[in-house]
Amino acid sequence: MKKVLAINSGSSSFKYKLFSFPSEEVIARGQAERVGMENSVFKIKLNGREFIKNTAIPNQEAAVSLLIDTLKKYHVVESLHEIAGVGHRVVDGGEVFSQSVIMDDDKLDKLFKLGELAPLHNIPEAQGIRAFKKIIPNVPQVAVFDTSYHQTLDKIHYLYSIPYKYYKEFGIRKYGAHGTSVRYVAPRAAKMMHKNINIARLIVCHLGSGASVTAVKNGRSFDTSMGFSPVAGVTMGTRSGDVDPSALQFLMHKTDMSIDEVIEMLNHDSGVLGISYVSSDMRDLIESKEKRAKLARRIFINRVVRYVGAYAAEMNGVDGIIFTAGIGEHDPGIRAGIMSSLRYLGLDPDFKANRTDGEKFISKPGSKVKALIVPTNEELMIARDVVDLVSGN
Amino acid sequence: MKKVLAINSGSSSFKYKLFSFPSEEVIARGQAERVGMENSVFKIKLNGREFIKNTAIPNQEAAVSLLIDTLKKYHVVESLHEIAGVGHRVVDGGEVFSQSVIMDDDKLDKLFKLGELAPLHNIPEAQGIRAFKKIIPNVPQVAVFDTSYHQTLDKIHYLYSIPYKYYKEFGIRKYGAHGTSVRYVAPRAAKMMHKNINIARLIVCHLGSGASVTAVKNGRSFDTSMGFSPVAGVTMGTRSGDVDPSALQFLMHKTDMSIDEVIEMLNHDSGVLGISYVSSDMRDLIESKEKRAKLARRIFINRVVRYVGAYAAEMNGVDGIIFTAGIGEHDPGIRAGIMSSLRYLGLDPDFKANRTDGEKFISKPGSKVKALIVPTNEELMIARDVVDLVSGN
Repeated sequence: MKKVLAINSGSSSFKYKLFSFPSEEVIARGQAERVGMENSVFKIKLNGREFIKNTAIPNQEAAVSLLIDTLKKYHVVESLHEIAGVGHRVVDGGEVFSQSVIMDDDKLDKLFKLGELAPLHNIPEAQGIRAFKKIIPNVPQVAVFDTSYHQTLDKIHYLYSIPYKYYKEFGIRKYGAHGTSVRYVAPRAAKMMHKNINIARLIVCHLGSGASVTAVKNGRSFDTSMGFSPVAGVTMGTRSGDVDPSALQFLMHKTDMSIDEVIEMLNHDSGVLGISYVSSDMRDLIESKEKRAKLARRIFINRVVRYVGAYAAEMNGVDGIIFTAGIGEHDPGIRAGIMSSLRYLGLDPDFKANRTDGEKFISKPGSKVKALIVPTNEELMIARDVVDLVSGN
Repeated sequence: MKKVLAINSGSSSFKYKLFSFPSEEVIARGQAERVGMENSVFKIKLNGREFIKNTAIPNQEAAVSLLIDTLKKYHVVESLHEIAGVGHRVVDGGEVFSQSVIMDDDKLDKLFKLGELAPLHNIPEAQGIRAFKKIIPNVPQVAVFDTSYHQTLDKIHYLYSIPYKYYKEFGIRKYGAHGTSVRYVAPRAAKMMHKNINIARLIVCHLGSGASVTAVKNGRSFDTSMGFSPVAGVTMGTRSGDVDPSALQFLMHKTDMSIDEVIEMLNHDSGVLGISYVSSDMRDLIESKEKRAKLARRIFINRVVRYVGAYAAEMNGVDGIIFTAGIGEHDPGIRAGIMSSLRYLGLDPDFKANRTDGEKFISKPGSKVKALIVPTNEELMIARDVVDLVSGN
């Protein structure tokens, strides 16, 4: 039996899950909060109970030590030898990392250098890996990138139509995101459809507070809606998705906002929150009586429909459309709205099945194109990558 | 018999066509060049011959006078009474002008005020109308807007997912363009298809040096790829089409370009020119042996396919796909590339018919979804609007 940690580091926190292999069972989970701040907290959940410790956590190294001590204290782990490896979610691997890797010092350097592509995410994630390497140097640390799955995109799909030198000099291109999620749900969906994924055309709608649509052709990412950054593509909770660049110029001249302030606004004040002024959360929009709350939901549906249509065209057809992540898994109204516009593809929605959640088909049995809900599990995918890499597969 | 002028004014030029109605025949055409500059020129073509006059044209009023004098000199027009009206192409009517109108002083004021939405176009166009009003005050001046056809878009399609106040305060939304062209070709295509346009779903690919894709549902513009400005949407000759806004921020920090310089670059140095470094002209890209010339054409095809797919989804299907404008009418390779990706819709391309130009079907007779070439004629549409408005239809 192997134990594997999956880690998601933020600037002042990390979340962890401890998996047991080969059962893939979660034996403990929790998080360190407010690391390096006042009132920091460490939490662990196991056997259905949660234990909360209010203690000073001055830095990431202290948080890692606390994690190891806590796992030992509750007898989840008796010795470090039981931990086969630690997998770390990393948002942006750029063009450097096209797959998950064991992080040696050289690769960790490269990751820090990539930081400018996604400074809010990559730097804390790299710092998290460094802290684990320092505290438990004999346990392999694996980085799993949200972008690496999309490194199979063709130039035709990843280049922007701007002067080519900006790609060569600065790496400006589409990188995408949510790759770990798509890499988990796409094979699962193919299996449910009794389709060989190597000859399937799938469209994965990863719809959470961040949302993206990915075309998966023959088992590889073929195109994806997020771009150079996660702000592009479909409407999200607080992110705008696609916007005419000239609108930003106009706004900057009208308001004296800087480009950084505009991009901040597109990331944090836009999306369904910006349209509705009610909430970034789809559940609040359902409850709200505000006219623009309904409008925001309809715009969200429309943008997903646009991308599903675009990718059906790029692949010259589609076999299955998969819904996953918070909204994709738990918002029947959004799923129904999207499916209603896709009958022309040969999709025959099963609106009754769609009313409830859980892994299943939501198209009728005879439907030419299938629609499915497949709950995602990025942490498990990260843990699986650790097992694969550590066992040398 | 009525005569109608169609005018396309630039900052230091205007092009004109004189139509005869009801035959809709062009009886003279030409242009004033380098107005207000040294070495200005006035040209007229009639009966297959061109006459060129090198003469000082100090301003737009002088150019209008010269036009009238030239028409009289060549006995194309004996008296101003023969001119039923003058139609002016105007790029951006904002939300103020949802259809073509006779321009009184009040409306002309409003047009000048709209100038900031498309300063490079609208101001010279408004100045052109003012010059015609001054020189031939008794002839009705009609403004025909590239945007007005798209004023039928639903909020769901025209709003960006940014804070709603930016729409209310500054008018930031999708306006589209090429409306006059689409308004010409869509009904023509419906007629060729023996379809009532009021129940048809068409996708018009207006592919010229500027390019856009428009969904026409039940005779009205339903969605369109250009946005707040003409830089958005598909890849064009020198315009980028859609780009992740964060890429602009990144570029500004890397190069110290200002937002105005970046937008200038997206308008003039991008598109197939920016990818290939060869040419903005598709014909040059065919000739070129540069690898990136071919790549640029493939990216262009892909971006059109994306939008056709997106709009087929938005309309839950499509009856006809129409190619028009320079590339759409004269580049069989581009048309073939696009059609090849659309078989999933039920399009059966007729690649043999596609090899040559001219108004015709380029899908096979039994094809469920039709593909057509329909040459556009924006000037005729402008002249028709003049006739309709002046005769009080």
